[in-house]
Amino acid sequence: MSTTAEHDRPASRPDRSPKQDRSRATRQRLLEAAVACLAEHGWAGSTVAVVAERAGVSRGAAQHHFPTREDLFTAAVEYVAEERSTALRDLFPEGAADRRAVVAALVDLFTGPLFRAALHLWVAASNEEQLRARVTELEARVGRETHRIAVDLLGADESRPGVRESVQGLLDMARGLGLANLLTDDTARRARVVTQWAALLDDALG
Amino acid sequence: MSTTAEHDRPASRPDRSPKQDRSRATRQRLLEAAVACLAEHGWAGSTVAVVAERAGVSRGAAQHHFPTREDLFTAAVEYVAEERSTALRDLFPEGAADRRAVVAALVDLFTGPLFRAALHLWVAASNEEQLRARVTELEARVGRETHRIAVDLLGADESRPGVRESVQGLLDMARGLGLANLLTDDTARRARVVTQWAALLDDALG
Repeated sequence: MSTTAEHDRPASRPDRSPKQDRSRATRQRLLEAAVACLAEHGWAGSTVAVVAERAGVSRGAAQHHFPTREDLFTAAVEYVAEERSTALRDLFPEGAADRRAVVAALVDLFTGPLFRAALHLWVAASNEEQLRARVTELEARVGRETHRIAVDLLGADESRPGVRESVQGLLDMARGLGLANLLTDDTARRARVVTQWAALLDDALG
Repeated sequence: MSTTAEHDRPASRPDRSPKQDRSRATRQRLLEAAVACLAEHGWAGSTVAVVAERAGVSRGAAQHHFPTREDLFTAAVEYVAEERSTALRDLFPEGAADRRAVVAALVDLFTGPLFRAALHLWVAASNEEQLRARVTELEARVGRETHRIAVDLLGADESRPGVRESVQGLLDMARGLGLANLLTDDTARRARVVTQWAALLDDALG
């Protein structure tokens, strides 16, 4: 963690040097390449060297940013998850409007390359001690943030009985729908399930 | 498939020889060892040789039953899924009684070693062409059967609008809850989500 902190300055920071900008751009290329690599080749096929080559970065530079394989891939999943969370909030700048649309957008978080990459990391972590603690902590953090976004966008009042669990169940369903989309294109069925459960959720949230 | 058909005779078949019984018992030991192996070590750590040793069966005998790694592991996941489906039906011999109990039992299908094993197979299949077609077909078959059981046990009338999608969404949620239980013990949270969603489903099914 400490090795990446110096590159995490916000883009607007006035004292950034061209060297820091280059370092930041390199880091970002590595993170995006890592998620794509994980999604396409799984954990077994994903190493720092493969990602460095894909990103057009020297192996030494990659290792400067991410000393271990675990550092690189957990940082990559977290980075892309944050990007997607921000994009999701930006989709609904006014907050909850059409709950069906919000549910569909939440479910969309769990399809595509990020979910695929996260799933590979998750499953690998279940059998690898070194990865397990890192991924458990990462998933808890990403999960809390996703829950917070869902509550905000759905306009859910969690002080009412059952509301918190309804939102949690929705996100569990979203995760399951992501899994159902892994081997086949499940788009049409998913849209029907989303419509039905958005209606049930609407009743539950009042 | 043709290599396994001769061992698939029902236990009650009168003309079974002791040799056939032994062959059937060997096959069953291999299937159970394969699921346990997949759950514990993932696809990368699961080979016919490792499973044969775990089952106390010679490698030659294992290969007689299952010529390829894909044969063994897809058959194993299917076998255990069938066992669990049967056990689930047996839990509710009278059909739908308490929907909360049925939902909890359905969700339980997606925790434990079978789900873990299936998940490893599923994720491996997303990156391995050889496995992909087999697992896609297997999942479709197991998925249809699970849906049928859910409809029966819940007493769901699928001719009514939205009922089919409600049951599908429930099973998607169950799958997502299985995923949430992979790295940490999610039992307490899961019970609360099940209670809430069982209530929503109860309203939807009427």
